[in-house]
Amino acid sequence: MYDVAIVGAGPAGLSAALNLKLYEKDVIWFGDRGLSAKVEKSEQIANYPGAGLISGEGLNRRFADHIREMDLELTEKKVTNILGTGENYQLLAENDLYEARTLLLAIGAVTSKGFPGETKMLGRGVSYCATCDGFLYRGKTIAVYCGDPRYELEVLYLADQAEKVYLYTPYKDSTLTKDPASGNIERLPRPIGRVEGDMRVSGIVLTDGTEVPVDGLFCLRDAVAPAVLLPGLTLDGPHIAVDHGMKTNLPGCFAAGDCTGQPYQIAKAAGEGNIAAHSIVEFLGK
Amino acid sequence: MYDVAIVGAGPAGLSAALNLKLYEKDVIWFGDRGLSAKVEKSEQIANYPGAGLISGEGLNRRFADHIREMDLELTEKKVTNILGTGENYQLLAENDLYEARTLLLAIGAVTSKGFPGETKMLGRGVSYCATCDGFLYRGKTIAVYCGDPRYELEVLYLADQAEKVYLYTPYKDSTLTKDPASGNIERLPRPIGRVEGDMRVSGIVLTDGTEVPVDGLFCLRDAVAPAVLLPGLTLDGPHIAVDHGMKTNLPGCFAAGDCTGQPYQIAKAAGEGNIAAHSIVEFLGK
Repeated sequence: MYDVAIVGAGPAGLSAALNLKLYEKDVIWFGDRGLSAKVEKSEQIANYPGAGLISGEGLNRRFADHIREMDLELTEKKVTNILGTGENYQLLAENDLYEARTLLLAIGAVTSKGFPGETKMLGRGVSYCATCDGFLYRGKTIAVYCGDPRYELEVLYLADQAEKVYLYTPYKDSTLTKDPASGNIERLPRPIGRVEGDMRVSGIVLTDGTEVPVDGLFCLRDAVAPAVLLPGLTLDGPHIAVDHGMKTNLPGCFAAGDCTGQPYQIAKAAGEGNIAAHSIVEFLGK
Repeated sequence: MYDVAIVGAGPAGLSAALNLKLYEKDVIWFGDRGLSAKVEKSEQIANYPGAGLISGEGLNRRFADHIREMDLELTEKKVTNILGTGENYQLLAENDLYEARTLLLAIGAVTSKGFPGETKMLGRGVSYCATCDGFLYRGKTIAVYCGDPRYELEVLYLADQAEKVYLYTPYKDSTLTKDPASGNIERLPRPIGRVEGDMRVSGIVLTDGTEVPVDGLFCLRDAVAPAVLLPGLTLDGPHIAVDHGMKTNLPGCFAAGDCTGQPYQIAKAAGEGNIAAHSIVEFLGK
């Protein structure tokens, strides 16, 4: 049983992890070693105090240096589901279960609303985790929405399992369809418009109306909608509702960073991660 | 008429100034070129994301570099009184008057409660500004509480005006009483306990009960109590009450950093300065 589980390795998660380390809390910190993709992609950042004019890549490198210097450990697993028992939180991350007394959601903003039909079909053919559910589609036909190049390894894993993969990437320069190991990957000519199905996913419909029959759809994105991740969480529009201390409506559950609302800013996220860590220390002390 | 007046040059004020510069707002920014004395005095800072393990001095140097790189201008005057007219804010800084449509208070936490009697006698012998009120005490006897070495020049100015100066500094290594120009400065043997007087200050009483008759008391401190600075401001204990957008109860007046409450942390202050700047831009756009 950990004291704290932090989900997310952007500036909010990092800021909290630094503070909880100083307070010698037993922390499990989930996130990608590449840290925030949103920071990484920023061409120039001028308003993170003390960093001067810096590229997103450069600032992420400083964050990574800080992580090494403070000997923080990142667990590179994707948390796909969390259950609050009232006493503690159980986190499902790629088929492994973790328990923690408190939880910090630093999961970023969900910029996409998801595809129409996606939430309804979650667990009935729609999945957010290749490693968790890939084996269910052995010999079947699936569609994959790959939101970021860092998920391409997961796509290859899915191509290894499924008979056929229809792929859509919102970015260019994907190397996936050139890879000889991925001969069964076919690129969709148009974005995915919606998910179809009744009891289970029967297909997807592209934005131009083309129907593509599939047995499942994997949505590989940076952020999972908070309500999907942790049922019972009170939202404020698409954001997690928090008070001044970054407390959510669930006891022991805190949130920080873009997931709590605008402005979507690095300094704001770092500030909220700091506040959340202090609130968590206070909560654990009780 | 400025778009924004920022009071305070700690991490909150800096963070706001950076963002308002990017939004091309016309800003007047009040603060000491030495930036936050609290940051400067920190031996080691481990939890400002991206800065690694760094001394307070080192971090302030990075802040100063950022100010230069972004071509921000600091006005080195102490704001001692602000009046909100409902339409705009008038700031009194060392006998000069400035006007701005919006106001950001990033004035730090008031760690001292002030001396008993101090608030009652404000403007009746108690002053926070040597440059403003020093001339009123030509040939008279005054007491000076000098909270930080950076105010020692003001003490010398007061010694130049007054016949006699009783000085108390809460720190060691003051060079004031060794200066040949300050032969009329006498160090008080005990801290100041309270201010005495009826219509006007008649003297101070030290913590051991010693009475020292004086005509005035100058309190030179980093932070002025928010309610003294800007009457009408709603407080939450000793802090300025703000909402999620860093708005205070007064329209167009925002607050950020330690003055809004704990945790007193650099990342939290920088985050709040960022949020406040965005709220100000929104307010000005209306």
